[in-house]
Amino acid sequence: MNFFDRLAHRSRAIDSLVCVGIDPDIRRHSTEDLVPYLSGVIEAAAPYAACFKPNIAFFEQFGIDGLRALERTLAAIPQDIPVIGDVKRGDIGNTAEAYARAMFEHWGFDAVTLSGYQGLDTVAPFLAYDDKGVYVLCRTSNPSSSEFQELPLANGRRLFEEVALTATSWSPRVGLVVGATAPDELRRVREIVPAAPLLVPGVGAQGGKPEEVIAAAGSEPGRIIVNSSRGILYAATGDSFAGAAAAAARDLRDALRAPAATGS
Amino acid sequence: MNFFDRLAHRSRAIDSLVCVGIDPDIRRHSTEDLVPYLSGVIEAAAPYAACFKPNIAFFEQFGIDGLRALERTLAAIPQDIPVIGDVKRGDIGNTAEAYARAMFEHWGFDAVTLSGYQGLDTVAPFLAYDDKGVYVLCRTSNPSSSEFQELPLANGRRLFEEVALTATSWSPRVGLVVGATAPDELRRVREIVPAAPLLVPGVGAQGGKPEEVIAAAGSEPGRIIVNSSRGILYAATGDSFAGAAAAAARDLRDALRAPAATGS
Repeated sequence: MNFFDRLAHRSRAIDSLVCVGIDPDIRRHSTEDLVPYLSGVIEAAAPYAACFKPNIAFFEQFGIDGLRALERTLAAIPQDIPVIGDVKRGDIGNTAEAYARAMFEHWGFDAVTLSGYQGLDTVAPFLAYDDKGVYVLCRTSNPSSSEFQELPLANGRRLFEEVALTATSWSPRVGLVVGATAPDELRRVREIVPAAPLLVPGVGAQGGKPEEVIAAAGSEPGRIIVNSSRGILYAATGDSFAGAAAAAARDLRDALRAPAATGS
Repeated sequence: MNFFDRLAHRSRAIDSLVCVGIDPDIRRHSTEDLVPYLSGVIEAAAPYAACFKPNIAFFEQFGIDGLRALERTLAAIPQDIPVIGDVKRGDIGNTAEAYARAMFEHWGFDAVTLSGYQGLDTVAPFLAYDDKGVYVLCRTSNPSSSEFQELPLANGRRLFEEVALTATSWSPRVGLVVGATAPDELRRVREIVPAAPLLVPGVGAQGGKPEEVIAAAGSEPGRIIVNSSRGILYAATGDSFAGAAAAAARDLRDALRAPAATGS
């Protein structure tokens, strides 16, 4: 099974579209307490997690000790739960091959996020690993995302639409990152690439609403996952952090259940 | 002095526009011989190097041992030579802050390359370090670069032109990555952003010609550096590698001297 099949399988098995983002805040941790804390969250949230998504930036900020902590954090994730490396790398040729080797062979991620500005050359070396998946940045959830992503093209499309069409044409193992904070654009992406796997960040702290995401992009397992990072990881501070993380992941799972499914 | 001032100073002091790319090929090295080899090249090529540019992908591919080797490689670079971290990161908000912390505080790079697809939010946390510089991907040197970068916009510009104008408007400490393999596009970028610092990869192995680069983009110190990686690093194999690297860097320096300067 490739990544997207594994993801669909896991989503169905636990009836959840939740992606648990692992983004440790450097102000809250030393490198010593990082692994126990994150392992506690992982163990508690796992029953509700279609997948986990560590963002490597938050480990890199601690230097090499942080990457050692990432190794140990990844080891705490149960084998049957797919792991997306949120690495947003984007380079070409032999450099892209080197990144693919790092992410898939060294770190063992099942999928990664990538920036597609340089075209297929960036993504192809990752697709050479035929059990792995890729999510290309399409329409992101940040304030300045419109500076380039919404530029109107001469062909009548906006840039993020062109990226959606082109990137998903490369392979069925290419999905898209589309933020929850712009439900109209999310609906538009779903309209033009109905089968594309979507990774949707931006619910919770960033303001996206779970029910709007599902209304815009559907709820088919494998075709959509909705990420929450801080909302789960730091649902509570102090000794109750793990239980609070589990409750936050469960609440997001419930909020993402499509009305039809909830009513049945 | 900020990065671009330091770069201009160094370029003038040694009359060189050469950026020496440090991109170790995993097929040629073990993690044990990586540092002695790269240190040998650095020492030999330093007299001709306006700056060094390690691409972190080639260290990440060796796993954490590779990053230890990067630490030791960086320590071998003389203090007065600026170092660009070719990391092509691109994320937003607190994630971009984490990457900036990693690159400038942990690794100590003087400048970095970034992907700008998500707009100013990606770049701003790096600009908060006021002695540092940034190069944003604009028109790259790979075959598929035209898939997105050359898209015609409704306003009559191509995407890479819009990126050039927008990114350099953020700060004078934002430069652009523009490949040597497309001299017409390089000339166009220089025309629309005459003062922008440019980092130009793609000479040598990738087919770009030094004299065409200078004709298209000028030769003002700090405003342009021309990168060669494999052409210097692997100029020869066997015991003569360091001497051959020095000769290759010197030859590129000479090829980049503007005709007017050469004739004086």
